[in-house]
Amino acid sequence: MYREEIKVLDCTIRDGGLINQYQFTDDFVKGCYRASCEAGVDIVELGKKLAVSDEYTRDKWGKWNFCDDDDIRRVVDSCDSEHRPQVAVMFDVGRVDLDALVPADQSPVDMIRTACYVADIDKGIDLARRTKDLGYGTTINIMACSAAIERDLIEALEQVNESPEVDYLYLVDSYGAFYSEQVSAYLAMYREHAPDKPLGFHAHNNQQLAFSNTQQAIIEGVNLLDATINGIGRGAGNCNLELLLNFLKNPKFDVRPVYRAIQEQLVPLREEIEWGFNDIYGISGHLNQHPREAMRVRGDNGARELCYDFFLEQSGEGDSALD
Amino acid sequence: MYREEIKVLDCTIRDGGLINQYQFTDDFVKGCYRASCEAGVDIVELGKKLAVSDEYTRDKWGKWNFCDDDDIRRVVDSCDSEHRPQVAVMFDVGRVDLDALVPADQSPVDMIRTACYVADIDKGIDLARRTKDLGYGTTINIMACSAAIERDLIEALEQVNESPEVDYLYLVDSYGAFYSEQVSAYLAMYREHAPDKPLGFHAHNNQQLAFSNTQQAIIEGVNLLDATINGIGRGAGNCNLELLLNFLKNPKFDVRPVYRAIQEQLVPLREEIEWGFNDIYGISGHLNQHPREAMRVRGDNGARELCYDFFLEQSGEGDSALD
Repeated sequence: MYREEIKVLDCTIRDGGLINQYQFTDDFVKGCYRASCEAGVDIVELGKKLAVSDEYTRDKWGKWNFCDDDDIRRVVDSCDSEHRPQVAVMFDVGRVDLDALVPADQSPVDMIRTACYVADIDKGIDLARRTKDLGYGTTINIMACSAAIERDLIEALEQVNESPEVDYLYLVDSYGAFYSEQVSAYLAMYREHAPDKPLGFHAHNNQQLAFSNTQQAIIEGVNLLDATINGIGRGAGNCNLELLLNFLKNPKFDVRPVYRAIQEQLVPLREEIEWGFNDIYGISGHLNQHPREAMRVRGDNGARELCYDFFLEQSGEGDSALD
Repeated sequence: MYREEIKVLDCTIRDGGLINQYQFTDDFVKGCYRASCEAGVDIVELGKKLAVSDEYTRDKWGKWNFCDDDDIRRVVDSCDSEHRPQVAVMFDVGRVDLDALVPADQSPVDMIRTACYVADIDKGIDLARRTKDLGYGTTINIMACSAAIERDLIEALEQVNESPEVDYLYLVDSYGAFYSEQVSAYLAMYREHAPDKPLGFHAHNNQQLAFSNTQQAIIEGVNLLDATINGIGRGAGNCNLELLLNFLKNPKFDVRPVYRAIQEQLVPLREEIEWGFNDIYGISGHLNQHPREAMRVRGDNGARELCYDFFLEQSGEGDSALD
């Protein structure tokens, strides 16, 4: 597949950090950033940009949860690659300190992506507006749309469409619940109700479909694609960047630095933390569930391989019927 | 997805046996067979049916490489499930003793699938003809079609089409090299040149696409689908039966016995043998290679995680150009 407009966003550190409280070493972050530079990736997301508080400290929650400009500069300056991707960070609605945000031309950050649920769409759009005012590129990533009431989702899409400050609108398969049919159907809905917005796509790999669903999004015309090195990410992880670059034929991409990063940095990390498809996440994706419960079970050594028990429990067998 | 005509073939023992020289315990085979019975699977393939010889002994190569009728009867008789799938075995061209094959009405076997390369298509069709004469259902599974010269493949398809003794023709992604686009393109070719043959599809999971490509085959109208419990199979393995049953909406299927078999039998087996996606198989699939070299590397403790080295080596960097 070759289409010149396609851009790849590497969210290795941001989505991967959800597994380990953003406790990556500087060397790891620099290595992943270098891989994406050398691979020709268009945008690199280096973490979240949340407000520090007494509860949310840098020590406990990891510096990449806060992405101070100085930390980002140290990573960016460590790499002498000719190609420089844009740098993105992510906002969570309600956990942001906008007063501390400097104008984009004084920051190493180029793009701020705002993740929000349908219920928080007004807050999300407000954040996008205020970051756009400071000169940043913006996206709205509507989370958990597969669990939203369709009428509410459509209203949110229409609001995004009426907000010129939003550069990209993301379809996000937060629960890893989509088949290719759903990717197509949701994208049709997004295009119908937000026709002015270029679309992005962010997959999860609960059912081994993150990569194939990303291909489906490409086939459907989406030009901004999220992926992570080795598929690292919360729960079942994300679309593997290396598989995606293999698929994309654009000669601007070079997959070799990504495989080098896997060999040198992700393989050792896999000894410490787990990500990727397994039976438990397959069930939570099939059932269109938040991965919370699946992650709890995977963290319980006595239960982590009991997929049959998990299936019965989660599909509600034995529960009284709701009416 | 619901289509009444869709049939699922569980080749857990046959494809899984390629990893462990068919050294499954009787309890394991019986457990998997029972799971497929209770799950409503249409056909269960219990192994290969090769000729015993001084070189190929039952002890060394495992009884499920030979599938004596008595062994199969013991498995089938061990299960009192109401639903009885058809029983299949597989022939490899050139390693078969047809004289020892009894008529189908005296055997617990219902279907014999013949796997052959394009170059052996005449021998494959001959085997299908002779097994059909004995009353068995037949398929031709053309292996490694992604590496065949198209003109030769088309000729093979035309020959299959002219052979009324072949019940099903299989598209097989032996190298796990297909994207959904290739699934569609090959199926179009198979339909064009073998229009009289119902089609089957057999995937491999090198690029995390076995399940999604099987969905694509369904979308393209294929009604006979191979899968294995937990995706067990040579190299990167196959389409996961449990994911496929989750996808198929036909109420005749029940996924729960499959998850029970995973929990009770496949999870312990995973301690002993490896299958499923990893970086090395991802590369061999991308490069459209026989998994031989990838399997060798995965068996080498010093090299099994060196995906960057494997990529450079296999993509021929540093080799002199061929002309």
